[in-house]
Amino acid sequence: MDEDYALLQELENTDGGGRALRDLNGGELKELCGEIRRLIIKTVSANGGHLSSNLGVVELTVALHKVFNLPKDKIVWDVGHQCYAHKILSGRFKEFGSLRKSGGVAGFPRLRESVCDAFDTGHASTSISAALGMLAAAELAKEDSLSVAVIGDGALTGGLAYEALSGASHLGLPLIVALNDNKMSISRNVGGLSRHLSRLSMRPQYQTFRRTFDSASQKIPFAGDVFFNFIQRLKRAVKAVFYHDNFFVDLGFEYVGPIDGHNIEELTGVFNDVRNLRRPVVVHVVTRKGEGFPPAEKEPGAYHSVQPFFLPAEYGGSGPFVEERAAAGEEVAENWTQRFACALKEAGERDEKVAAITAAMEKGAGLGRFKAAFPSRFFDVGIAEAHAITFSAALAASGFRPVAAIYSTFMQRAVDQVIHDVAVNSLPVVFAVDRAGFVSGDGETHQGLFDISLFRAAPSVIILAPAYGSELDMMLEWALKQKRPCIIRYPKADLPPEDGVFIPPIEEGRGVFLNPGCERAEICLAFTGGLLNEAQVAAEILLKSGISCALYNLRFISGVDEDYFTGVMKGRKLFAVAEEGVKSGGFGEFTARLAVEKGLGVKIGLFSAEDKFYAQGDRDELLRLAGLDGASMAASILGALDLFNSPVGYLLTG
Amino acid sequence: MDEDYALLQELENTDGGGRALRDLNGGELKELCGEIRRLIIKTVSANGGHLSSNLGVVELTVALHKVFNLPKDKIVWDVGHQCYAHKILSGRFKEFGSLRKSGGVAGFPRLRESVCDAFDTGHASTSISAALGMLAAAELAKEDSLSVAVIGDGALTGGLAYEALSGASHLGLPLIVALNDNKMSISRNVGGLSRHLSRLSMRPQYQTFRRTFDSASQKIPFAGDVFFNFIQRLKRAVKAVFYHDNFFVDLGFEYVGPIDGHNIEELTGVFNDVRNLRRPVVVHVVTRKGEGFPPAEKEPGAYHSVQPFFLPAEYGGSGPFVEERAAAGEEVAENWTQRFACALKEAGERDEKVAAITAAMEKGAGLGRFKAAFPSRFFDVGIAEAHAITFSAALAASGFRPVAAIYSTFMQRAVDQVIHDVAVNSLPVVFAVDRAGFVSGDGETHQGLFDISLFRAAPSVIILAPAYGSELDMMLEWALKQKRPCIIRYPKADLPPEDGVFIPPIEEGRGVFLNPGCERAEICLAFTGGLLNEAQVAAEILLKSGISCALYNLRFISGVDEDYFTGVMKGRKLFAVAEEGVKSGGFGEFTARLAVEKGLGVKIGLFSAEDKFYAQGDRDELLRLAGLDGASMAASILGALDLFNSPVGYLLTG
Repeated sequence: MDEDYALLQELENTDGGGRALRDLNGGELKELCGEIRRLIIKTVSANGGHLSSNLGVVELTVALHKVFNLPKDKIVWDVGHQCYAHKILSGRFKEFGSLRKSGGVAGFPRLRESVCDAFDTGHASTSISAALGMLAAAELAKEDSLSVAVIGDGALTGGLAYEALSGASHLGLPLIVALNDNKMSISRNVGGLSRHLSRLSMRPQYQTFRRTFDSASQKIPFAGDVFFNFIQRLKRAVKAVFYHDNFFVDLGFEYVGPIDGHNIEELTGVFNDVRNLRRPVVVHVVTRKGEGFPPAEKEPGAYHSVQPFFLPAEYGGSGPFVEERAAAGEEVAENWTQRFACALKEAGERDEKVAAITAAMEKGAGLGRFKAAFPSRFFDVGIAEAHAITFSAALAASGFRPVAAIYSTFMQRAVDQVIHDVAVNSLPVVFAVDRAGFVSGDGETHQGLFDISLFRAAPSVIILAPAYGSELDMMLEWALKQKRPCIIRYPKADLPPEDGVFIPPIEEGRGVFLNPGCERAEICLAFTGGLLNEAQVAAEILLKSGISCALYNLRFISGVDEDYFTGVMKGRKLFAVAEEGVKSGGFGEFTARLAVEKGLGVKIGLFSAEDKFYAQGDRDELLRLAGLDGASMAASILGALDLFNSPVGYLLTG
Repeated sequence: MDEDYALLQELENTDGGGRALRDLNGGELKELCGEIRRLIIKTVSANGGHLSSNLGVVELTVALHKVFNLPKDKIVWDVGHQCYAHKILSGRFKEFGSLRKSGGVAGFPRLRESVCDAFDTGHASTSISAALGMLAAAELAKEDSLSVAVIGDGALTGGLAYEALSGASHLGLPLIVALNDNKMSISRNVGGLSRHLSRLSMRPQYQTFRRTFDSASQKIPFAGDVFFNFIQRLKRAVKAVFYHDNFFVDLGFEYVGPIDGHNIEELTGVFNDVRNLRRPVVVHVVTRKGEGFPPAEKEPGAYHSVQPFFLPAEYGGSGPFVEERAAAGEEVAENWTQRFACALKEAGERDEKVAAITAAMEKGAGLGRFKAAFPSRFFDVGIAEAHAITFSAALAASGFRPVAAIYSTFMQRAVDQVIHDVAVNSLPVVFAVDRAGFVSGDGETHQGLFDISLFRAAPSVIILAPAYGSELDMMLEWALKQKRPCIIRYPKADLPPEDGVFIPPIEEGRGVFLNPGCERAEICLAFTGGLLNEAQVAAEILLKSGISCALYNLRFISGVDEDYFTGVMKGRKLFAVAEEGVKSGGFGEFTARLAVEKGLGVKIGLFSAEDKFYAQGDRDELLRLAGLDGASMAASILGALDLFNSPVGYLLTG
């Protein structure tokens, strides 16, 4: 391994006589990029993670680290999934093998990990705002540190990016926006801006002139405002000949590009020029996702975010590729997303008013089948959750039955659209909220723990959570008949087995008992669908201690039939509720409120995630950490039962 | 009055032989605009409301109603505060005197009021998404109805508008965006786009050619694709000479403009042309806020949203203008916004790291004083709440102490920025959340009832609510010393008197008792700050019934010292909580949860707004409607006390 990463080792050992990045020559920089690529491929094949995007920005990252002075200068990585080379170059080369592991190197920038990670990211389109804020702060504090936002063409479709571009232009601060144009966001890129970027990329001739001119004019000694203004006017005049105004110029930015994103020398040259420009500038860098790893170059989408895979021999591994495994028919359990994909397609067959909307998550949210079957009723709006939902509201207002499929964590970006555009007129939009609950690997910014609290507050919105695949089917069918907005939430997990399980039809506002005969047990554990397995494990453990526990699948998290639910709670020795979401504002608080309002004497136990951000780990680990695994819940319930003879304390939460 | 509104009466009486809008000639259309203006001025001077913006779009509205076929064609009014002429022309002329009154005509478009109000609006930047969704629905349903989004230059700074422009271009549907360029949003407009629009307005010569060319080429009979393509190429070539590409063209729109927004003939001509274009198009209409009412023309900002005012004699009224009343020193009670304005300026004096951020609400949010004193530390980002908060997060990450002043209802637009950008690293941003609770006049889309539920879910965020002006001062000072995000919420209301009231210093997580000697009364009413008066009235009524009631000013709504609060609740006969926010996810549910967790035997009463949208009314009316007024709360408490001998039922909610 040593010889494989000789330059990386040297860079990490500058105190011990190693050289710094600026000391490397052109050939060595290329070699360094090779080392970084090998390390990324090796690590991601072992741990899973984002591959294509990280391989695409190796040269860009090396160039930025060479030109800018971290941590004094700030680099904000938009979304942040492309930060691997940055982490390797900023002191985390040796730990990089722990990527995405619990307690290891996070897959996204984290200030808690390094001062070189200027701003925590995870969701798209925040980088320009953040980098601009840092630059404004430096300006106020009279520090001369610079700010670079590295943003993909996909993230640039988000409205926040545009708000920030407009804001940067207004402030006139020398913000540097490195536009990493790889021609696609997670799904293919869409929208007017995307087409505009393609047109820009076809016009390199101006930039050749521009770079020559810039570097020549910088050699002329400073000669006062008059001369400077003349230079500016001259540049604009020449530009008008070569180049029409573009989107960025319209918004008040200088525009440099397109630049070959795999040519370190060119990148370094441009960023060196741009450092001294003292005006807001967009550097348009064209990169190729998966660069340097042919399988990912060929299929960048398939290698966007991957599970661990066997590496072929030429990369030091010994197995077939991901797709070869799948082609070989290797058995993979069906997961919630796949089940939803089938259910949605069937819904589209039943009713031609059903439409599907996604915000750049066609594959991730399982919309491929629907799209293939009903292309005219499928809408991918790009990374633009707010627009996805207001657009859906209008479809619903026009008599269609839109299903917006958006991850729980990204639904946070469209809260007002749900309240102000959907709920206010109770428009029948169905939200398929995938990745609800704990999500393996991605950490703080990707856990789906807030949707229950946020959307319980939205009047008229029903929240449903299926425990079984066929319950998801039924819920989707049911939701599409309602005259109200409905959220259906389910985790990133495999489906539970359901052979021989009878699943009764949906009744509005009501859940169902799972274990017949136990309904009136003194102990009852109610749970949100994704926690089925954990609830079952808890009941088994309790049974071993001789305690019979009724299991109640809530089904409805908002829009609950309160009288019915009161009946479910009533007369128990202990009624416990488990939900995969934060405690504050969650279903547990609703339960407590209902118990208080109805004057029930029943003792209530609440299991939920704590009000905090959970770092990366796998879902089972995270459930344990939150006390939401079966063993923890059973132990808590047993402990509470012991306490019942004591004068105070009903039950502590998990 | 009859002769004043002869044409409006005729239009409303088409069944009885009156003429329709299309039957009026040019002179009559002008006269009609005069009638509409008189009615708007008269009504707003009596009821309050939005004046400048409505006067600015009279001709635009008449032209749209003349050219488009409502309700088959859809007009979506962005923000919607400029819909008065639209309402007058779509069957609500006779009821218009009830504007903004409880049960009367709403100040914003409301589908429940008329099918001509295609989509409910209130918040900015939603119209393009909504109009596009309706057009997509029409396309799928093979209906030939058209969609027009009417959006101001201010609302166009919002990211959602940009997401939708990009989406419209991608779909290629013939969306018509009427850009109402009045050179300002509520505060002055800011940002790169605004400057770009100004440049566009200076180049009318191309449009003259363009209109002539378009109308000539429409007369040539259709001659196949080759000819059509030639025409398109020719148009583009000519355009390249007259006109550089602009922002809208870059995003894939046709662009027509600038058009004089007070010339009905020109407006009608352009919209007639555009109807048949079958491509996404932006019509750039330049209007003047306050047109036709000199005081508002002179001071459009002062007449943006006004209280009732005396109308001068020439408009049929008898009193001085708003500003004359103020100049005459007419006594006006100090309100929460003004208090905050002073407190913020003082904070800026104490600490040069304090910065202020607003999203186009400099005046409304009380930032004028700070801006005047510390212009370099003041940032107005335009109508762009998401950017305002991510930008603030970056300032905080860089050692500054940003105070983001945003209305409660608009904070809904930045939930993910609070969670994902601020809370994740517990960055010390202070949020001054004005208009929290019920807001007079504006209705469903402007009530500040969701912030408690939404932000209680955000880990590490403290929520504070002052009951007195000096408590607001203390809270701001306290919040600016914390290492966590803090929200301070207060209503749109006058400050309560506080002569002789002792206000103890802030202690983290703890509230204070108001009425010394009553602390240990058997009944306690805890309340969020804005409900001070209502709580006091309730306690007085109870006292008259011989019941002593402790009043507990919560101060902390999130970040509560749970042990301390448990002590406050403990041992009461009844502990009631009143909050100005929706029930689901609110502080009442927190209280219930705590009572359950701590095993308190105390009976809990919860007063909160229902989980629904409240239509317009004044704040006192709305509080009564929600049972949050002193009399209702006292009656509920008395009723509950009667119930205590009954075997079930602790206390019903207000």
